[in-house]
Amino acid sequence: MTKPSLPKGTRDFLPSEVMKRKYLFGILEEVFLRHGFVPIETPSLELMQTLTGKYGEEGDRLLFKILNSGNFLEEADVAALEQKDSFKLAGSIAKRGLRYDLTVPFARFVVMNRDKISFPFKRYQIQPVWRADRPQKGRYQEFYQCDCDVVGSKSLLYEADLLSIYSQAFSRLGIEVAIHVNHRAILAGIAEASGIAGHFTDMTVCIDKLDKIGEAAVHEEMVKRGIGPEAATRVLQLIQSTTLESLIPSLSGTASGKKGIDDLKAIFNMLKGYTLQQEIRFDPALARGLSYYTGFIVEVVAKNAKMGSLGGGGRYDNLTGSFGLPDVPGVGISFGAERIFDVMESMDLFPKNIGGSLQALIVALDPESMEYGIRITQTLRSSEIAADQYPELVKMNKSMKYANDLKIPFVVIIGEEERNTGRLSLKDMVSGNQEKLEVGELIKKIKTPI
Amino acid sequence: MTKPSLPKGTRDFLPSEVMKRKYLFGILEEVFLRHGFVPIETPSLELMQTLTGKYGEEGDRLLFKILNSGNFLEEADVAALEQKDSFKLAGSIAKRGLRYDLTVPFARFVVMNRDKISFPFKRYQIQPVWRADRPQKGRYQEFYQCDCDVVGSKSLLYEADLLSIYSQAFSRLGIEVAIHVNHRAILAGIAEASGIAGHFTDMTVCIDKLDKIGEAAVHEEMVKRGIGPEAATRVLQLIQSTTLESLIPSLSGTASGKKGIDDLKAIFNMLKGYTLQQEIRFDPALARGLSYYTGFIVEVVAKNAKMGSLGGGGRYDNLTGSFGLPDVPGVGISFGAERIFDVMESMDLFPKNIGGSLQALIVALDPESMEYGIRITQTLRSSEIAADQYPELVKMNKSMKYANDLKIPFVVIIGEEERNTGRLSLKDMVSGNQEKLEVGELIKKIKTPI
Repeated sequence: MTKPSLPKGTRDFLPSEVMKRKYLFGILEEVFLRHGFVPIETPSLELMQTLTGKYGEEGDRLLFKILNSGNFLEEADVAALEQKDSFKLAGSIAKRGLRYDLTVPFARFVVMNRDKISFPFKRYQIQPVWRADRPQKGRYQEFYQCDCDVVGSKSLLYEADLLSIYSQAFSRLGIEVAIHVNHRAILAGIAEASGIAGHFTDMTVCIDKLDKIGEAAVHEEMVKRGIGPEAATRVLQLIQSTTLESLIPSLSGTASGKKGIDDLKAIFNMLKGYTLQQEIRFDPALARGLSYYTGFIVEVVAKNAKMGSLGGGGRYDNLTGSFGLPDVPGVGISFGAERIFDVMESMDLFPKNIGGSLQALIVALDPESMEYGIRITQTLRSSEIAADQYPELVKMNKSMKYANDLKIPFVVIIGEEERNTGRLSLKDMVSGNQEKLEVGELIKKIKTPI
Repeated sequence: MTKPSLPKGTRDFLPSEVMKRKYLFGILEEVFLRHGFVPIETPSLELMQTLTGKYGEEGDRLLFKILNSGNFLEEADVAALEQKDSFKLAGSIAKRGLRYDLTVPFARFVVMNRDKISFPFKRYQIQPVWRADRPQKGRYQEFYQCDCDVVGSKSLLYEADLLSIYSQAFSRLGIEVAIHVNHRAILAGIAEASGIAGHFTDMTVCIDKLDKIGEAAVHEEMVKRGIGPEAATRVLQLIQSTTLESLIPSLSGTASGKKGIDDLKAIFNMLKGYTLQQEIRFDPALARGLSYYTGFIVEVVAKNAKMGSLGGGGRYDNLTGSFGLPDVPGVGISFGAERIFDVMESMDLFPKNIGGSLQALIVALDPESMEYGIRITQTLRSSEIAADQYPELVKMNKSMKYANDLKIPFVVIIGEEERNTGRLSLKDMVSGNQEKLEVGELIKKIKTPI
């Protein structure tokens, strides 16, 4: 009998934490639904052939693989066994794995369910994913992702919609953010205008690090990767433009630069019809590493918390190509739910009353009052009050400690006098005040927010 | 590039299915919270040492095991490899597994978090579990469980509370049920009164099959297991008593029979303080196979649907003993969420308006109206209407088909005339009626439930 423990990188959630997570996800869902997005869910388990090769070599290594059931050695790769090649062997003894993100399962979903859904298809998905990453502070092997995508349309209206979602969601959560937007075609235009169109990827890899390592180091790294020093200086100058207009003279001569500027202009123009409460900032230095994105890109940064990105996304040309369905374009964003949770905790942004759910504890002082209390408890519950009776006759300080531990705001005390008069003792656990009230008054008191 | 598919026994959930599942779980959660239960969540992954040996040999075989990361063959059991013993080898190359139920993780949770929670601890938990069972209609390898337990108290008040939860939950879902209750001590009393105390387990195993195989076959099987024919007849006679009172003469002479009757009497007495909308039926034939239960037992059966049990539970003496914390008693129930879902589908019990979430589709007839429509869409959204604009200028029948496919009840059509007059065309997609309304009237119309 060993002391129980949890696999590294996994967590139990106590009631107060679950309530907070429900609050966070609940707000996101409300905003998604309001914008016409609908939820889907996919299984935790996917076939390895669905997952493998989608996340690069590193990603493949971090996939959780499920051992085949039964006598799995029967179909094991004999050569791999003899060579003691774990990675190769895994291919023959584990045909399923755990979901690594929500994008690949979504692509598979779209292909498999394409006859049951209508395009443009606006879906959101909030589910856990698993990665066999080295656990560290704030990084877990099992964690939630929260994605919002529209597939089957090239309309920029959806870029505007997704920016509106970011703005509303963070406002409702109480986090002030800057929403950085850019366009891959503007980055291509910058490369072209700097005469390094052939070094596009090198350039984006380098400027992606601007925030972390600073201008000088980015310049140095660009040069190291074969970009001329003057071109590197030009790139750094262009990506520090603060307005779309200021880039026009340099980029309008390039086809991609023009396309990027036109797209962003159209998006900003549509946004005039929206009420936005958060800053949308054009940021030509925003690169987002993923080569996956082909158009608009976006990233959200908290203004008052030292935290990396709280979300990001962009437009892509081909979600489902690897599953045999070409030409399904889309645009999507994701919320860094775990990190948003941490920001909200550190900034104390969760409402006070979601910690404990019980609003009233009924405490009886004698056996007859126990029975009387059952009726009172049910009366409170049918008035939509979460109420509970302490189950035993114990010393007052024990039941009061229980109420305190569970952060229950009101205790209803019932003894002989209370039973006889019908006026029950109501103790306000915050102020410590105690008064005698009839049931109706008592319900009103408990239901009135303080 | 193979056609994508899903692991057997797993499912994708389309938006309408997710919305229905959310509706179902939402109602259960409301009832749980009202009764003072709070949610916890545990990780999908548990250490194999936590799971193994808790579910019997069959259960161990059905556990999903996660292949260790990296070069797992390094620590592989060499003897098992040489003997090609898959089961033995698994022990050395898979240290983690997927949650098989919610009870064992809950027990582990209670032990590991006992300093952070207060007893009696009332928790509910709604999470998926995984079993490598042969998939068949209505049985999946990944499915949800929904449990409600109180631990750390022997008070029968919680039995009454859990019965109230069953009653309220099924009433709110619209399913008429019979809630069968019994007590292990009554079964022990019946065995004793029939002179077969030593055959208690044989007896319960047999009467557990009464519904399926009928009286004669149960009698036969009891005899086969060494119970005398007369005793078997006596047992069958006693378990068909319909009231607690009618059993008293036969059982009050046995210590356990008396205990069981006293407990159930106390529970029924407390229930008088509750408003119950479903039938609670004393059923001495209810055995519930699990030897785990030691007191009160319960099972829920739908009255108007041919479906097995929709839920069950009971009292136990020792939740956490296998994790080194003895003497933690409790009582709990579970909801057969997947089966309840199927019953609700077959009886058409889900509200009509949760299928599609969009309430209005805005359709523009020209480029200026597209821009105008953006503003209208945002106005509707800020009036708490889930609204969306069709993203392109297309033929009317295409956008109408989209509205139909998504079951959107209203379409707002905007052309030059509508822009100039400010009176927009509102088409009711159910009746087919179309009228011109100002935005304010239009919002009122859309928000008024039909």
